[in-house]
Amino acid sequence: MNGYTQDKEAYLRRLRRIEGQVRGLQKMVEPDKYCIDILTQVSAATKALQSVALGLMEDHLAHCVTQAAAEGGDTATAKVRQASDAIARLVRS
Amino acid sequence: MNGYTQDKEAYLRRLRRIEGQVRGLQKMVEPDKYCIDILTQVSAATKALQSVALGLMEDHLAHCVTQAAAEGGDTATAKVRQASDAIARLVRS
Amino acid sequence: MNGYTQDKEAYLRRLRRIEGQVRGLQKMVEPDKYCIDILTQVSAATKALQSVALGLMEDHLAHCVTQAAAEGGDTATAKVRQASDAIARLVRS
Amino acid sequence: MNGYTQDKEAYLRRLRRIEGQVRGLQKMVEPDKYCIDILTQVSAATKALQSVALGLMEDHLAHCVTQAAAEGGDTATAKVRQASDAIARLVRS
Repeated sequence: MNGYTQDKEAYLRRLRRIEGQVRGLQKMVEPDKYCIDILTQVSAATKALQSVALGLMEDHLAHCVTQAAAEGGDTATAKVRQASDAIARLVRS
Repeated sequence: MNGYTQDKEAYLRRLRRIEGQVRGLQKMVEPDKYCIDILTQVSAATKALQSVALGLMEDHLAHCVTQAAAEGGDTATAKVRQASDAIARLVRS
Repeated sequence: MNGYTQDKEAYLRRLRRIEGQVRGLQKMVEPDKYCIDILTQVSAATKALQSVALGLMEDHLAHCVTQAAAEGGDTATAKVRQASDAIARLVRS
Repeated sequence: MNGYTQDKEAYLRRLRRIEGQVRGLQKMVEPDKYCIDILTQVSAATKALQSVALGLMEDHLAHCVTQAAAEGGDTATAKVRQASDAIARLVRS
């Protein structure tokens, strides 16, 4: 069980929609659609991905990290460090 | 003809790879893979999308904006404004 | 006591350095230095600020959120929600 | 003369305000203010810096790049490449 498990269907729907957005980008590049219109759709897909990431991170903090924290010790420290590294990757991507 | 037209095949390949990454995310969520591993892959897909966007933007500046600038006048001004708005969406996404 | 308290001096030094970077930006704008060189320094200052934010967030998770999680209940839930909102602001800024 | 020269006073005012925001961050860290409140202010300063960068980039495209494009040749190509590199640094910071 992970933090996101109970919302799994919603996450899968969002990811399928993002997959559709990326397929849509190919259908814009194929017939040489205008660059700026493609860029607008790339930004939309990027935002949708980041929004999924923020949801997964909140679920992760609410479940995995919180549970490790309640148990305490080295596992808690390791989970916080791991979550912080993932946050840094998100901020820098 | 757009700035990216001559690299169209390369862009399509990159977008198909990103589509595959997003499908891969669904295959991680489905069997409840560990949140942090999913987040790492979301960051990778986001970076790949941004990299496509930066390539399209460079091609756009090198062709559409440069050509409009060479012609001068209101079209040049409008193209610069439009490119700047797209850059702002990229930076904020 | 906050998560960052024991590293307070290091954070203050980093913030003073960023303050100096922003003053340096003014000293580049004043005599009309080249735009791209100014933009390079703006990116450096932005990265330095984000790095401070990531440090503060890790300290916050390691102390405030972990402690609230160990106590459990509504406070833990509220702290996770608050941290998640702050992470979203970081990712989107 | 650079793209931003005619708005120099406005840029200097914005940078002085950001310098004040960074000094304000130190005045929050000093007496151990709550981490999340500090993070909110870091996000605000980061956004303000990015907004300055986007303004400088638009001015740069509208003047330096446009002028180089009108002249054509290798200088135009080099300016577009240089601007694209700066955009990539902004997107990744």
